This record gives sequence, structure tokens and C-alpha cells, in this order.
Amino acid sequence: MKFTVKIDVKKFIESGNLRTLKTILEDQEPATILEMIEDLPPEEKVIVFRLLPKELAAYVFSELEPDEQTKLLSLFKEDRIRDILSSMDPDDRAELFDEMPANVVKRLISYLAPEDREITMELLNYPPNSAGRLMTPEYVDLEENMSVDEALRHVRETGKNKETIYTLFVIDRTRKLLGTVELKNLIFADPEVKVRDIMKPDPMFVYTTADQEEVAMIMKKYDLLVIPVVDSEERLVGIITIDDIVDVIEEEATEDIYKMASMEMIQTSYFHTSPWDLFRKRVIWLILLLLLESINGNIIKGFEEVLKGMVVVAAFIPTMIDTGGNTGSQISALIIRGFALGELKLKDWWKVLLREAGMGLMMGGVLAAVLFLRAFIISHDLTVNLAVSIALLTVVVYSNILGAALPFLARFLKIDPAMMAGPLLTTVIDVTGIGMYFLIVKMIVG
Amino acid sequence: MKFTVKIDVKKFIESGNLRTLKTILEDQEPATILEMIEDLPPEEKVIVFRLLPKELAAYVFSELEPDEQTKLLSLFKEDRIRDILSSMDPDDRAELFDEMPANVVKRLISYLAPEDREITMELLNYPPNSAGRLMTPEYVDLEENMSVDEALRHVRETGKNKETIYTLFVIDRTRKLLGTVELKNLIFADPEVKVRDIMKPDPMFVYTTADQEEVAMIMKKYDLLVIPVVDSEERLVGIITIDDIVDVIEEEATEDIYKMASMEMIQTSYFHTSPWDLFRKRVIWLILLLLLESINGNIIKGFEEVLKGMVVVAAFIPTMIDTGGNTGSQISALIIRGFALGELKLKDWWKVLLREAGMGLMMGGVLAAVLFLRAFIISHDLTVNLAVSIALLTVVVYSNILGAALPFLARFLKIDPAMMAGPLLTTVIDVTGIGMYFLIVKMIVG
Repeated sequence: MKFTVKIDVKKFIESGNLRTLKTILEDQEPATILEMIEDLPPEEKVIVFRLLPKELAAYVFSELEPDEQTKLLSLFKEDRIRDILSSMDPDDRAELFDEMPANVVKRLISYLAPEDREITMELLNYPPNSAGRLMTPEYVDLEENMSVDEALRHVRETGKNKETIYTLFVIDRTRKLLGTVELKNLIFADPEVKVRDIMKPDPMFVYTTADQEEVAMIMKKYDLLVIPVVDSEERLVGIITIDDIVDVIEEEATEDIYKMASMEMIQTSYFHTSPWDLFRKRVIWLILLLLLESINGNIIKGFEEVLKGMVVVAAFIPTMIDTGGNTGSQISALIIRGFALGELKLKDWWKVLLREAGMGLMMGGVLAAVLFLRAFIISHDLTVNLAVSIALLTVVVYSNILGAALPFLARFLKIDPAMMAGPLLTTVIDVTGIGMYFLIVKMIVG
Repeated sequence: MKFTVKIDVKKFIESGNLRTLKTILEDQEPATILEMIEDLPPEEKVIVFRLLPKELAAYVFSELEPDEQTKLLSLFKEDRIRDILSSMDPDDRAELFDEMPANVVKRLISYLAPEDREITMELLNYPPNSAGRLMTPEYVDLEENMSVDEALRHVRETGKNKETIYTLFVIDRTRKLLGTVELKNLIFADPEVKVRDIMKPDPMFVYTTADQEEVAMIMKKYDLLVIPVVDSEERLVGIITIDDIVDVIEEEATEDIYKMASMEMIQTSYFHTSPWDLFRKRVIWLILLLLLESINGNIIKGFEEVLKGMVVVAAFIPTMIDTGGNTGSQISALIIRGFALGELKLKDWWKVLLREAGMGLMMGGVLAAVLFLRAFIISHDLTVNLAVSIALLTVVVYSNILGAALPFLARFLKIDPAMMAGPLLTTVIDVTGIGMYFLIVKMIVG
């Protein structure tokens, strides 16, 4: 198998045996080449790119991280840049331009042939993360009056460099989308039959302005390998294929996971994101949460008398905070994921809250019982132990309801529910949970 | 557009106008039918299934949640079950059987035709979440000596009900996989050319025993729409298509998100999971964490004298716990996601830890400064405020390193890194962070 062969690109470059290296590289998968050059310094990467055929070079280049792309662009000779840019898929090219600083983009655009330039500028005009940005204009279109035989001939003539020929798009003279035909159906159909009679009319489509998450949802739901993209007048302007959607699904999951840990989205991988960028994206949230949490200090200060009388009460502060936070994290993860997968809807809110109130009571009961026993390790005051157990029950019920309610609230306010998890949620729970704890202890123990 | 038409299935059923309903249903996408019947009681779902053509019924049925499938199977007439089971894709059928109780499976298997029974039993023999379970044996194979023309004829003759005809698999007489041919290449090739000359030799493949996560990784990396699955002797036994992989990617992200919130994996959606099941999956973790957290109580108890002298010290306990936990959650989410996306590797550990030690110092410095100012709201003792700020700096550095280190440790021990996040991580951080806090305050304030 190809991918088990280990080749040391560095050795070939250092020994100057570039002709052999070229022969080897030409036969590799882009993903294999990416791995082979991963650890090379930029200067040696440039040599590898010089050896690659245009198409392969363009493909490998479009898969690199933005910081590497920038570095390589500054090292490539002008004609190599021209080669690579003109061989890139329009959607990959738009993505590249999107990530480069404006002055670089300006220079790069000047290298493009006029028709490529126009396509690229058009794609860049769509909002980020929209269907217009994801799509490629490289599809095969058919007319409804063509016979199957004519359609197949048309595919053979025009399909060579298209993103896919497995789904074909039937349009009228104004480019309005009439239907789709699977290549499969052309192959199995009688050559004389008209395209009109085997096409699937009224196919699913998305507008150029649709959010990529929405596109992913529709393609998953209807098990589509490709979806047509239309403009506001429902004229066909491009297609989105499933391989781009796979990336979108991963990206959206990553975004949710980061938000659930109170961080902004990071598009690039760990080692290709500048520490300064990461620092900013993390520390802003930490400062906000630290300020929000300051309420805790005031509450505890307010119960100074209780604490002075019974220092052991302080020993259960972490118990309330941790258990409340853990309970809230669990249920919020369930609800947020339910929204993301389309399994939960806003209208379900009361069913969920009712269910989670009951669930909170059950879990709180069990946990309170465990704490009641555990408490004897550090306290032999039965009343105190009973008080902290009842407080824990209250905090668990409260956290479970709040952890379920906040994602629904976010959804209602059209904020991303993923914000209502992890650090932010636990801090909100703490701020109120601590107050409940002291109030209950004060009431029971006095 | 079809999907904008609203039809009230319930009304049709109640008015007995089943013939019209049947005509309407026959034209719908499976996903649309799923939505239409979602809120119907099981008895009315059964009526809808009676109206659907076999193939469509089988497809819609395979997309239902397990609890609904069980209910419907108990309501269907025997011949309807036979129809649906025999029309289901082998991989969907294996998945269904996998989720049903043993006695139901036994009955269902007896309804199958012998050849379907054999295929299903074979698929069920592979371990859960393996390539063998995901694959379908419905592919088109070619011989290398066929001409392009013969190959196309072969596709037309045998391809009708296969999962895909867009990738064809070239095998020798012992069924060993020799290569793959894209239908595209057959279409563009000269009819006289031999399959051998246009096939892609040594294609990527996976073994039946490969984990589904590994299959997803390879298909993403090499941008494959389909991957062949071979047995231990490298004979072709099935194929996996990208639509199944889209589900795997979502499932793996869900699993990570749940683990990061300290819950076991839940395969079914919120309303289709029994509350009792959810209760168990959540409460076990909460109890374990509550017990682990008990160390905090002992530590705080040990510093009773410090607390008695300065009750204000208790007011900063939540600050240490929250900020430490938040910092740890952020970095662990970054590292865990980096592993899941294949961007980080075990060998990167020292680079990451070094970087995160520096990051922790920077963030800790900023946060300590903020806390120093904030502390004056509840305390006017400069030494105390300085001590808690220094303690926070220490806790942040420590949490940031620990939050980065634990996922690496898990990876090293071959545990899922996603375990080392959220609740478990914050509890571990708390247990040690509280000790650090009191030690530092005691040292500085005395």
C-alpha cells in the first residue's frame, strides 16, 4: 500500500536527487504529500512545490494552514504563484483570499486571468460562512428537451473539469433551476427518453445567502451528495458538495465545543494560531467571569457572622460550587447538542424544564444522601450536616433547571445556545448557589 | 417547493381519505415524511406505513428512533414487517437488530429470506462501531480485463440497486481488491480501453475491524466519497459511503461533548431516551465527583485557624475554584479538539506544556491584577489582597498546565482525552487549587 512507504523528502532535497523525488511525488495523494512536507522548513517546501504538477500543487497548497500559505506566497516565484492560483478550485481560491491580508489579496488578484478574477470576486462578495462562499460554479447543466443520449454526450464534452458529474442540473433559458438528474439515471435510461421525463423536479436548493450550518442540516436530512445554490431570483449559480459539508460539520462542532468552554472560535489549528491570538480569545472571557464571580465574595462577606460561628460551613462551599456546576454542565451539554442536531426545538421548553425539575429532585436526593454521610468526616454536628445536605438538594435542583433553561433562553433570544455552558453557566450557578447555601444553613442552624 | 407545503396527515387519517394521502405521500422525500408523522400516535403511524411503497417505508422506518421502531414492530402486521425488513439496506437492518432486544431480533430474523438472513448475521458479527458494521455489501465489481464498454454494460446490468455506482471496484478471481475505477473515468475513456489501464491501483481501504472513527479520519483526509472494506485476507467484502460517515462524525462530536460534560454516551435523542437511563448516566459521575471533591472539605478544615482569624479568606474560595476551573476548561477543550481533529499528536506534549506554562503566566498576571483591584470591594487589608492575587496567579498557571497535561496523559494511557475536561478536570483542579490557595495565604499573611 502506498501510504505505508516512508520517504524522507529532506534527504532527497539535501542530496539534490530532485528528479527521483519528482517522480515519487507525482504518484502520491495530496494528503500524503501534506504529511511528507509537514515538518520541512518553508524553503524546502518551496522546492517540493516546484516539483509538483500544477494541479497537485494547487490542491496541496489549498490544504495548508493560512500562516504557511502566507509564508510560501512570499517565497514562490511569480509564475509559480500564477500556476497555483489558476489551477485552484474557485471556492478554495476564495477561501485563501479570505484569510490573507488585503494588500496580499490585491497582488494575488492581479495575477489571475480576467475570467478567474471575476469568479473569485463574485464569491468573495457573499457573506462569510454563507452558501455563496462554499459553492463552486463548476457544475454541468442540461436542458430539459435534451434526450438521454444528447445529455450523456453533453456530459462527456463539458464535464471533464467539473466538481461533480454525478448530479446534473436542468435549467431553462433564464438559468432558472428546473430539476436535477442523477448520472445513474441517465445511464440506466433509454437513450431516446427526454431529460424532462427522468429529471427530479423541484429539487432541494439553498440560496446563496443561506448559512453554512443550514446547508449542512438540509444535506444531512435529505442525504444529499450535492445541493444546488440559487440567487434571489432562483437562478442556478453554483453547487455545494458533501466533502465541503463534512468540513462544515466539523467546524460547527468545534465552534460549539470552544463556546462551551467559554472561548471564541479559533479557525486554525493549535500550532498555527499565534499565542497572542489565543491569549486574547481566552483572557477576555476569564476576566469577565472573574468580575461576574465577584458577587460571590460579597455574599460570603454578608454571612461573615455565620462563618465566624461555624468555620466548618466554609468547608462545604466547594461542594456546592462543584456539584452545582457539574449538574448544570451535564444538562446544558445535552440541551445544546440536542439543538445542534435538530432534535430539540424551542417549543419543547416546558416539557424539558418539567422533566429536568423531576430529574433534579431525583439526582439531588441521591447526592444529598451521599453528602449527609460524607459530611461526618469533617463535622459531627448533625444539624449542620442535615443543613448542608438540604442545601445541596436545593442547589442541584436549581442547577439542573437553570442548565436546561439557559440554552432555551439563548435560543429564544437568537443567541448561540452553546454560550450557555461550561464556565459561564457554572459561574452563574455559583453566584446564586452560594447565596442559597448560606440562606438555608442560616435558617436551619440559625 | 415541496418542503413548504403543509399537509395535516392527521386530518386525512381522521376523514378516512387515505387514497389521496397515499398519492401525496408517495411523492415525498423520506425526511419530509419523517417530519409529517413525527407527532402522530403510534396507531396512526402504522396507517401511514401501510400507505407507503415498500422501499420508502423501509427507508423511513430505518430513520426512526429505536423506541419508536420497537413500538411500531409490535403494531405492524406480519407481512408489513416482512416487506419492510426485506426492503431495508443490509447496514440499516443490522443497525436495527443491534438496537432491539434479543427476543425481538430472533423473531425478526425468522421473517428474512435465507440470503438476507445470512448477510445480516454476518454484519452483526462485527464489533459495534467497526467498519464491518457500517459497510454494505451492495457495490459493483469489475474484472481488470474488461473493456470500458463491457464495464459500462456490466454497470447497467448489475448496478440498479447498489448503494453507489459512482465508484466501481476491480477484484481478481479470489475477490482480492486490485483497484478502483470512477464511473466518471469510464464515461470519459475510449470504449476499447481495458479497465486495468484506467483503474487506480492500490486504493485506500480499511479492514472490517477498523474503528468507525478511523474510517472517518481516512475518508476526510483523502476526500473520499466511498471506501472499500476488506477482510483479513484483503478480500473485498463491502463499501462505506460518505453519508454514513457524516453520521459518524456527528456521533463522535456528540460523544466528545458529553464526555467533556462528564456523561456517558447517549445514542438516542433527548425525548427518546428514558429518563431512568439518563438518570443513571448522569448521577454515577456526580456521585464520584462529589466523593473526589470531599478532599476539599478536609483541606479547608485543616486551615480552620487561618479562617477563624480572617473570615474574608473564605470569600475568595469561589474565586480560586471558578477561575482555576475556567482556565482549565478552556485549554483542555483546545487540546481535546486538537486530538479529535488530528491536529495534535502525543509527541507534541512538551511543546504544548511549555507554551501553556507561558500562557498561564501571562493570563495569570492579568487576572491577578484584576483581582487585586476587585478585592478592595470586600477587603481593605493590602497584604490579604496581595496574597489572594498571588494565589490566583499560581492557581491559573497550575490549572492551565494541568488542563493541557491531562488530555496528553489520557492519550498516553490510551484513555479517551475527552474524559479530561469539564467537571472531572475542574474537580481535580479544585482539590489541589484550594490547598495552594490556603498555603500561599498562610505563608504571606501568616
